[in-house]
Amino acid sequence: MKKIYMDHVATNPLHPEVLDAMMPYFKDNYGNPLSLYGPGFKAREAIENARESTASLINAKAKEIIFTASGAESNNFALKGIAYALQGKGKHIIVSKIEHHSVLNSARFLEKQGFVVTYLPVDNHGLVDPEAVKKAINSETILISIIHASPEIGTIQSLSEINKIAKEKGVLLHTDSVAAVGNIPVDVQALNVDLMTFAAHQFYGPKGAAALYVKEGTRIVPLIYGGIQEGGRRAGTENVPAIVGMGKAADITKRDLQKRIDHIRPLRDSIISSTLKINKVILTGHPEQRLPGHASFVVEYIEGEAMLLMLAAKGIYSASGSACSSKALKSSPVLISIGVPVHLAQGSVVFTLGEETTSEDITYFNETFPQVISRLREISPYSKGWEETEAPTCTAKK
Amino acid sequence: MKKIYMDHVATNPLHPEVLDAMMPYFKDNYGNPLSLYGPGFKAREAIENARESTASLINAKAKEIIFTASGAESNNFALKGIAYALQGKGKHIIVSKIEHHSVLNSARFLEKQGFVVTYLPVDNHGLVDPEAVKKAINSETILISIIHASPEIGTIQSLSEINKIAKEKGVLLHTDSVAAVGNIPVDVQALNVDLMTFAAHQFYGPKGAAALYVKEGTRIVPLIYGGIQEGGRRAGTENVPAIVGMGKAADITKRDLQKRIDHIRPLRDSIISSTLKINKVILTGHPEQRLPGHASFVVEYIEGEAMLLMLAAKGIYSASGSACSSKALKSSPVLISIGVPVHLAQGSVVFTLGEETTSEDITYFNETFPQVISRLREISPYSKGWEETEAPTCTAKK
Repeated sequence: MKKIYMDHVATNPLHPEVLDAMMPYFKDNYGNPLSLYGPGFKAREAIENARESTASLINAKAKEIIFTASGAESNNFALKGIAYALQGKGKHIIVSKIEHHSVLNSARFLEKQGFVVTYLPVDNHGLVDPEAVKKAINSETILISIIHASPEIGTIQSLSEINKIAKEKGVLLHTDSVAAVGNIPVDVQALNVDLMTFAAHQFYGPKGAAALYVKEGTRIVPLIYGGIQEGGRRAGTENVPAIVGMGKAADITKRDLQKRIDHIRPLRDSIISSTLKINKVILTGHPEQRLPGHASFVVEYIEGEAMLLMLAAKGIYSASGSACSSKALKSSPVLISIGVPVHLAQGSVVFTLGEETTSEDITYFNETFPQVISRLREISPYSKGWEETEAPTCTAKK
Repeated sequence: MKKIYMDHVATNPLHPEVLDAMMPYFKDNYGNPLSLYGPGFKAREAIENARESTASLINAKAKEIIFTASGAESNNFALKGIAYALQGKGKHIIVSKIEHHSVLNSARFLEKQGFVVTYLPVDNHGLVDPEAVKKAINSETILISIIHASPEIGTIQSLSEINKIAKEKGVLLHTDSVAAVGNIPVDVQALNVDLMTFAAHQFYGPKGAAALYVKEGTRIVPLIYGGIQEGGRRAGTENVPAIVGMGKAADITKRDLQKRIDHIRPLRDSIISSTLKINKVILTGHPEQRLPGHASFVVEYIEGEAMLLMLAAKGIYSASGSACSSKALKSSPVLISIGVPVHLAQGSVVFTLGEETTSEDITYFNETFPQVISRLREISPYSKGWEETEAPTCTAKK
């Protein structure tokens, strides 16, 4: 049976060149990078080379890169680190309603510690209105955090417009670019953001390596205190092989990014045009301003989880945009935020492509997906009129 | 030239069986463990197997293990997580003065957020007096954090006595067992601690994998918010290969621990008895109640860094117990706490052995170290009477 991985926004296979680059740091160069001599010295050097490469991918300076272990850690670090650093100036933070849980839940934690958070709505395409940002800023506002590209609906935010407003008002802007860096060209100088989260496994690097870009001169309080690693801003013995892998993946991505985009965009367009021919299927997110390998839909009368199951049985691995697929048993706040009714949000499915996706894969997908939908609609009690029936179990704890 | 790694307390080489176990999770089983089907499923299963193995090493239940990315993260998580979970009950925390920086600096952060911290002194061997713990506890006390074994002086704490007091007073006990787990038998049931930090790279597992043991029923607030990984207590895409490696390293350690101890203890004893024959060299830490592979000294009239350099030139890789070696330019708070005068604390050096250390290595070491000391004392201006001279540069920022 075919096996087609169409969940690249969840994670990616490790690039073979990345694994090769990591291997010496599992074996010979295992020393602690803090040790001054011996096996640790090469590890220290390798980390600093990886920092150069990682910085270069987003057009930052090496000293502006703090390595962390995950995008979630970087997002927690950004929100709490700036909140605690600038609480003397003010205690108001602005985020959008479609942020990743690591941003939203950090914001909720800060609310419990006395901070005030504004959750900005988005339009039907998932875009934050820069004017709404302007209106939300007050004299207490210290940080705005807006997701760069949504992993769930693919929409790419108009960050430069938002940032123009933030800069006018003297407020820092953080962006969660986990789904963006490695999938679209990202330049922190052009965007002029103050903090940016990104993760290696989104661009064929290893899990366990991510970064927070912190613009030179920006004060931040550590999330993880301890030794003097990462300039005293993020403690813990460095995960040297993973950091080396992130650097290598950044080099490869810088080299191959345009080729990857040129490869996956027409394949993705084929999925969208083919799938939208099916009755009662809607594209979620922005029709053009979206990640090049990202196609997301809501399919009426069917639960996302049922689609995932049947697609997996046909060898197609995908994700439900609703958190249902990750067992959280809640309707997706992102879909609700863009105006998808609760009963439709259950029928969400996301396909994300990668450099190894072939046109044969897409031909197979375009034949298979309509069959899956037909079959599920035949057996679904909801197909007779979802609206009139009880909500499916998935929403029970919403 | 010989190359003898004697800095096992800083980190360890990866066990070849551990690397073998990790490899499939870099390659075929790369999927996100949260995905319900496809490549992620095997990753999910592997994580849960690793959790069983990791729990078993310390005699815990699998559900009591939360995977993190470093010992520093686990320590930050324990202190802040309990502080925020129990702040309604009280805001007083007790730590010892010889904790790792990740504990001390977390405590200092919490002080800034309105918590009150007592820093307990230790005796000349580095032991916390259980009676002092008893006196420090008040009605506001919510947490005691005492390091299990000191990486710097090797002393193993009398945790069960301290814990008896904690339990009598209904206060939670966390212990930083990074230097203990993998080096001595550790049983959380016998110790009856509530939280325990440990890290895989201390027992031939990978960097980037560590754990916090949290006794069943103990409330803790996440340090890293986000998705539902680790039961919602620690978010971020799991570093699957590293977690798998930690599990494998735990299995191997459980199997080999006694053999390792029996191998390194006599080698370590040989170092101590040989080195103490040198004039004006003092063993730091407890003479018996110490890590089996750990020998630490202060050498009068010489700076630790000079010893490290000259030892490294002879192929012996070791660490200075003073933070000087890690470029922090401060006298070691641990050595000051056990009563070592500032000028002597500069002459600190730590040797830690591992399973690959041979008796030939130790013979070479026992010949070489006295020569290194002699040579350095010949050229040292301080050897004429350190006490009468100015403090060395290393203490400039103390």
